[in-house]
Amino acid sequence: MIKIVLLGAGNVATHLYKAFKSPSNIEVVQWYNRNKKTIDSYKNEVNITDNLNQLADADVYIIAVSDDAIEALSSALPFDKRLVVHTSGSASLYDIDKKHFRGVFYPLQTFSKTVDLDFTTVPICIETLRKQDYKLLKTIGESLGCKTYKVNPDQRPALHLAAVFVNNFTNQIYRVAHEITEKHGADFDILKPLITETARKIQDVSPYMAQTGPAKRNDKKTIKRHLKLLDNQHHEAIYKLLTSSIKKTHGH
Amino acid sequence: MIKIVLLGAGNVATHLYKAFKSPSNIEVVQWYNRNKKTIDSYKNEVNITDNLNQLADADVYIIAVSDDAIEALSSALPFDKRLVVHTSGSASLYDIDKKHFRGVFYPLQTFSKTVDLDFTTVPICIETLRKQDYKLLKTIGESLGCKTYKVNPDQRPALHLAAVFVNNFTNQIYRVAHEITEKHGADFDILKPLITETARKIQDVSPYMAQTGPAKRNDKKTIKRHLKLLDNQHHEAIYKLLTSSIKKTHGH
Repeated sequence: MIKIVLLGAGNVATHLYKAFKSPSNIEVVQWYNRNKKTIDSYKNEVNITDNLNQLADADVYIIAVSDDAIEALSSALPFDKRLVVHTSGSASLYDIDKKHFRGVFYPLQTFSKTVDLDFTTVPICIETLRKQDYKLLKTIGESLGCKTYKVNPDQRPALHLAAVFVNNFTNQIYRVAHEITEKHGADFDILKPLITETARKIQDVSPYMAQTGPAKRNDKKTIKRHLKLLDNQHHEAIYKLLTSSIKKTHGH
Repeated sequence: MIKIVLLGAGNVATHLYKAFKSPSNIEVVQWYNRNKKTIDSYKNEVNITDNLNQLADADVYIIAVSDDAIEALSSALPFDKRLVVHTSGSASLYDIDKKHFRGVFYPLQTFSKTVDLDFTTVPICIETLRKQDYKLLKTIGESLGCKTYKVNPDQRPALHLAAVFVNNFTNQIYRVAHEITEKHGADFDILKPLITETARKIQDVSPYMAQTGPAKRNDKKTIKRHLKLLDNQHHEAIYKLLTSSIKKTHGH
């Protein structure tokens, strides 16, 4: 049985807590949050606390808090030489106080409190200093049904940055499309199958190969027509920049 | 039995031809292309021609050629007062010669010759001048298992523009992420579940509600860290523009 103490109560922590309930070889022995109220609804199923001095013994302490809070929280843990990991894509492994055995257990997915998630689709990026810690984190990830990836200090921030592109920026592109359809009284739902297919396509072929459309064809007439249709400066700037980016990629 | 003559041999035409094979109430009585060689491999299953003067009788003539060629091809059809439709999201219905009954049968999806497609996921946007033509096109769309949508001359170009955002621009965002991961020796595949989930999420919630990440949180530290990591001017411009777009949307 792998004993886990979970620290934090944000999106990632909450999704992790729920996911940890399933595997028979994993037990969340305690859930810590600075504000106990946030996790009060779980008190009947797990030991909850807001007191760092009452932390339980565990094989791994998983800190799922905002990047800025990792350093202070890890320093405040009243023990040393135990495995303490954070779940951030962006923060350094060295943000964890050096008195601990340090690691990163980064679930590369988008988490919303209101949206349920099949955790088996979450890739886990693992960074550790010691082999045995890597093994333990890998076992935890695999017990959740996840694919795990060993990453280095250069790869993880790059993955996090790339994740901002494919998630946040893509989602903002959806948002702009939503604004455009609303403005013209068209139904955004009509675009949903295209959104699905666009994401599905690059599971098999590279984004380069998957590209189509006026920018790739350098179809000046359609591009001009689109720019005429856009009466929002912000949308226009995005259209122009991404069109020129596609043109550049495809040699125009 | 609805008789169709298909004109053109690009991605859309080819996918339409294949889709039209299934419904028992639809028959492609002829496939025309300027260059007969392109469709030569189909000659054993369908009447193919490169001669407009030998066009067969049909209930509808579907012109699936590039936007620029619609006008000339529709004028060159050696008959009048029959239903002639194009498949473009962008070209006007009035690009079709006025001697015909005119319409648009716009499958709003991304088509690649090399990527198979489940046609039942394709929304069909229909524009006609006569009610009976709308009914016929709706029947054809539904026979393919598609959802059909009646659109007006303002909505269709807006949908096409929005489709460029959610398909071409999203795909270019994937491409940039691909370049970033490659540069840092990370595996682009790790991002694929996130890409899938990003597209899936907005099937249920609005893009506004689905947004997460440093720009939405106005997390200046992470944004600064990301900008430092980007050493490609083009990527940096995209990062800055979409970050400011998200900030604006979410009130920062």
